[in-house]
Order: sequence, then C-alpha cells, then structure tokens
Amino acid sequence: MNTKSLSLGIDIGGTNTAYGLVNRRGEIIAKGSIPTKGHDTVEDYIAALQKELFPLLAKAGIEHIAGAGIGAPNGNFYTGEIIFAPNLPWKGIIPLAKLISEALDIKAVLTNDANAAAIGEMAYGAAKGMKDFIIVTLGTGLGSGFVANGQLIYGHDGLAGELGHVIAVRNGRQCNCGRKGCLERYASATGLVITADLWLDERNDETQLRAHKGKLTARMIQDAARNSDVLALELYEYTAAILGQTLADMVAITSPEAIVFFGGLANAGDMLLVPVKKHMEDNLLNIYKNKVTLLQSALPDADAAILGASALAW
Amino acid sequence: MNTKSLSLGIDIGGTNTAYGLVNRRGEIIAKGSIPTKGHDTVEDYIAALQKELFPLLAKAGIEHIAGAGIGAPNGNFYTGEIIFAPNLPWKGIIPLAKLISEALDIKAVLTNDANAAAIGEMAYGAAKGMKDFIIVTLGTGLGSGFVANGQLIYGHDGLAGELGHVIAVRNGRQCNCGRKGCLERYASATGLVITADLWLDERNDETQLRAHKGKLTARMIQDAARNSDVLALELYEYTAAILGQTLADMVAITSPEAIVFFGGLANAGDMLLVPVKKHMEDNLLNIYKNKVTLLQSALPDADAAILGASALAW
Repeated sequence: MNTKSLSLGIDIGGTNTAYGLVNRRGEIIAKGSIPTKGHDTVEDYIAALQKELFPLLAKAGIEHIAGAGIGAPNGNFYTGEIIFAPNLPWKGIIPLAKLISEALDIKAVLTNDANAAAIGEMAYGAAKGMKDFIIVTLGTGLGSGFVANGQLIYGHDGLAGELGHVIAVRNGRQCNCGRKGCLERYASATGLVITADLWLDERNDETQLRAHKGKLTARMIQDAARNSDVLALELYEYTAAILGQTLADMVAITSPEAIVFFGGLANAGDMLLVPVKKHMEDNLLNIYKNKVTLLQSALPDADAAILGASALAW
Repeated sequence: MNTKSLSLGIDIGGTNTAYGLVNRRGEIIAKGSIPTKGHDTVEDYIAALQKELFPLLAKAGIEHIAGAGIGAPNGNFYTGEIIFAPNLPWKGIIPLAKLISEALDIKAVLTNDANAAAIGEMAYGAAKGMKDFIIVTLGTGLGSGFVANGQLIYGHDGLAGELGHVIAVRNGRQCNCGRKGCLERYASATGLVITADLWLDERNDETQLRAHKGKLTARMIQDAARNSDVLALELYEYTAAILGQTLADMVAITSPEAIVFFGGLANAGDMLLVPVKKHMEDNLLNIYKNKVTLLQSALPDADAAILGASALAW
C-alpha cells in the first residue's frame, strides 16, 4: 500500500489535456489544462506539460506524490504506450508513460480514457463498491471499460474493452477502423449526427434540425429533442435501439450489476437512458432481465477523467 | 491453502453424471458414472449418487477429501443452485451444492458446465498458465466461460458467460430461449443439423447427407465432410463464418490470448477451427489481428469436465 497522500491525474484528449492533483478522498486540490494540439512532436508536448506541472508538484511537495495516472485514447495499460491513436497529433507507438515519468521524475501509469473513467466511477462515482459493471463513454466515439471481479478487464495485451468496435449492424455503416457496422458509427455523438444527416436527406419530416443540415451537432439534436422535436426524439429512439440491443449481448458475457454512461451524449440523461433500458430489456436473455441498472455518471464531467486517471497511480 | 490430497469432481449432464477422484496433479485415480435421468425427484437422484460415492470416499479416506466440485448446466457459482435447466429432469431452482454437501458430508461448490471446463483447461489443459482466454463448448448447445486476469468472469449474479445466447443473426432462427438468432442455433451440433436440414430442403446438391434427411446428426455431417462431401464442407464453412464473426466481437471485449474449443463439434478439429480462425481474423479490429490462438481442448473428452469440476474444490 502506497502511503503518499496525493496523486496526479492526467486526462489526454484530442484537443486538451486536463490535469489535477487528487487526494485520497478523491478531491481535486489543484487543476489546470494545456492544449494537446499545437505541439509538432510528442517531446514538445511533454516539455509543455513539464513546464506546467513542475511548479504544481513542487508546491505540493514532490515527496507527497504517489505517482501519475494517465488516461489517453488507445492507451495500453501493460506497455504504457499509446498505440496508433487516430485522434492524437502523434502517430505510431508513443511510450507516453515512460516519457512523462522521466519528465516529472515520478512513477507513471497509463490506460485508455474509458478504462480511466471506469476506475474513477469505481473509486468515487456511480459504481462505487461494485465489482461487476460496464462503463460506456459516449463522446465523439464510443469507449468502454469492463470491470469483473472488481478488476478492469485489460486482456492479455492491455487492449480489451473496445465495445465501440463490436459490430452492431452487420455490413452497416463504414467505420474509420476499416470495417462496417461498428457500434460507434451509430451510438456516439458522431453516429447520432450521421443518422440525422441521412434522415434529413431521405425524409421530409418537419423539424427544426433541417435549418442546420450539413453542420448539425449532437448538442443541437439534444436541444431539439428537449423542445419535443419529433425527428430529434426519433433519432434518440433509433440510437437507443441499436445501443440497447448490443448492450443486451454484452450483459450475456459479463453479467454486470450496472452499466454507467459517461460523456457528452450521456448528458441527455433519461432522454437516452430510458429508451436504451427499454431496448436492452426487450433483447435480454430471460435470466438477466430486470437486474441491470443503467446509470448516468455521478462525477462532474470535467473531473471524472482526472479522478479516474489519478486513481490508477495509487 | 487446502492441504488435503484429493478432490471429487462431478459432471452432471442431461443423460449421465460422471464423477472422479482427482489428485493434486490432475490425475483421476478412480471414476464412475450413474444415469442422471430416471430419478423422479432430485432427492432420489442424490440418494443414488450417495450410494455410489460413499464407498468410494470411504475407501480413499474421507479425511483426505478437500471437497466436491460440481459442473452442471445452468449452475450458479454464487448460490450453488441449478437455475431452470431445460436439459435436466428437475425443474425450477435446485440447491444442488447444498444437497450434495449434506449427502456426502463434505464441502461442495457448483458452477456451470462450461465454467468447469474453463477451470479444467486453465488448471490442466490447453489454457495452462493463461490469464485471459475464452472457452467455447460446442455440444448440443453452445456454452462458454470467459477468464480475465486469471479469474473466471461470474458476473454479479453468477450467471455470466452465455455466449450461446449472443445474437449472431439479428431476427434469425427461433431459439429455445424465446428470442431469435442466438449463436447456438447456428454454431452447435444442433445448429449444424438445422442448417443441413434447411439446405437439403432448399437445394438440390448431390450429397451423401440426403440419404439421412430428417434423422441427420452432427456426427454424420462430420463423417461426410471427412469424405470430402461438398455440401458437408460447405456446412462447416457456413457454421464457422457465423461463429468466427461473433468471436471477433468477443475478442474486442476481453482480448483473450486464446480461445479453447471443447465438446463434440470441436472434435472436428482443423476442419472447423481453420475456417473459424479465417472468419474471425477477417472480422477482427486491426489491433487484435494475428494475436488470438484457437486451440482444441487438450483434455481427454470424458475427463475434462470431471477435472474442471474437481479443480473448483481446491
């Protein structure tokens, strides 16, 4: 057991990198952010991060820092590397945990952003005390973390938990990964907008979304649905159906106590979760019915990933 | 750590119950079987089992017996109960671990048959030393056990690992479970025969299988395929395609080092595993390609379930 009192959480997103110093009670006692973009090389980025973090760590007293936990897209827990992350500026395989550990002179552990969120939810959030749950992050893409027996499932290579790339619709929409019909092409902010654009092309419904055709965002669709726009509500229903039926299959594998939803699209709350629950239940094998709770993340949005990453370092 | 030298493995199938006394090296030092059917009540069955096992345990010296491990269809590890098993004579919820423990006066632990096989493969078989793998049992139905971080995934309710009831074909074949398109309606001995019967109805291929129409077995199809019967080979290819593409989705969840195949249909060996591997690889997300080994169970068929069940008791 690590007896130091603080841990550094770093959440690397495609646009920004947020960081925070977190105590053992899960309170962020100092935080900040720098742009992820705009650094030509990963070394420049690490230098910028070092310049921000050194004074922070010095002020807290580096002897109190247990280490750094890092959440990043395509992060590999076992190797500490980022593996071909399409949404980050640096290509190929980046030994990020090692680079940050050397730059800050503290231990550093890395995992993918959804796994970090799962750890955060388990330590401080909606999944506190649970041993078997799934976290689904609904942002630009769809990320996931599966927890079984109280442990994150990393897989033999550290790359488990890619629910976004389970095939939801056989021979369906073309995905960035090169295959067709991946869940994240339907159930994510991007997927919701793709569906909306298709429907606006194909159909003649009267909808406030039509005015934004070609530059729609998931947020606009959420606002329209809150305004009872019929097409927007139907978009949620369609997205929820595909997500719910895929989740029903996942329940048959890990039989979780709960599924926790996190990220921009999940902020729609019941507007999304009520139909997801309905479609999941309709598709569940009998023995799993009425057992799985769907929850929205209980962590404040900007903090969850920092908390999750920081929890890795203990 | 349990220091006793022997453990009793009991494998309860729909037709027969096999049992064996197993030492710490995984050697079965005595074994036998009784019919599962033909007992009107579970109490009669337990009495018959007791009559067989008491002398066996007495001869070995009951003080050396660590306990009994039981594998049974729809067995729940947490509760020790059999939950609504469609292929067993006793209906409803049966507290089997408790009944056997009381009858034999030893500790008893129960799990489902596929989980028992997974434990057997991990302790003594093809998955020895592995921490992340999947076992798929291809018999009358399709059972599965998922191992992550060296532990079986039981789920919050003890009922995880129902790969046979993941939807492989949306709105596909009617399953006994009441839903449509479950994997086991395609990839199992039963599924293979259903496909064959359908094709014999719909198509005019010349095939040695036609002579057996209406009373086909998976074994006949295997024999025909070994005889290079074109339709039989195509049946394997079709079954392998559906199994392979579903396994590709499962790899994205638990990222296993290997998938171990067990049971009657798996005895076809490469005739099945080579096309399953091909279709799985064709459908895998890039990061998982060429990493997952498909293996046939290395345990002698009749012993694997006994060994697996017995390993539970240590």
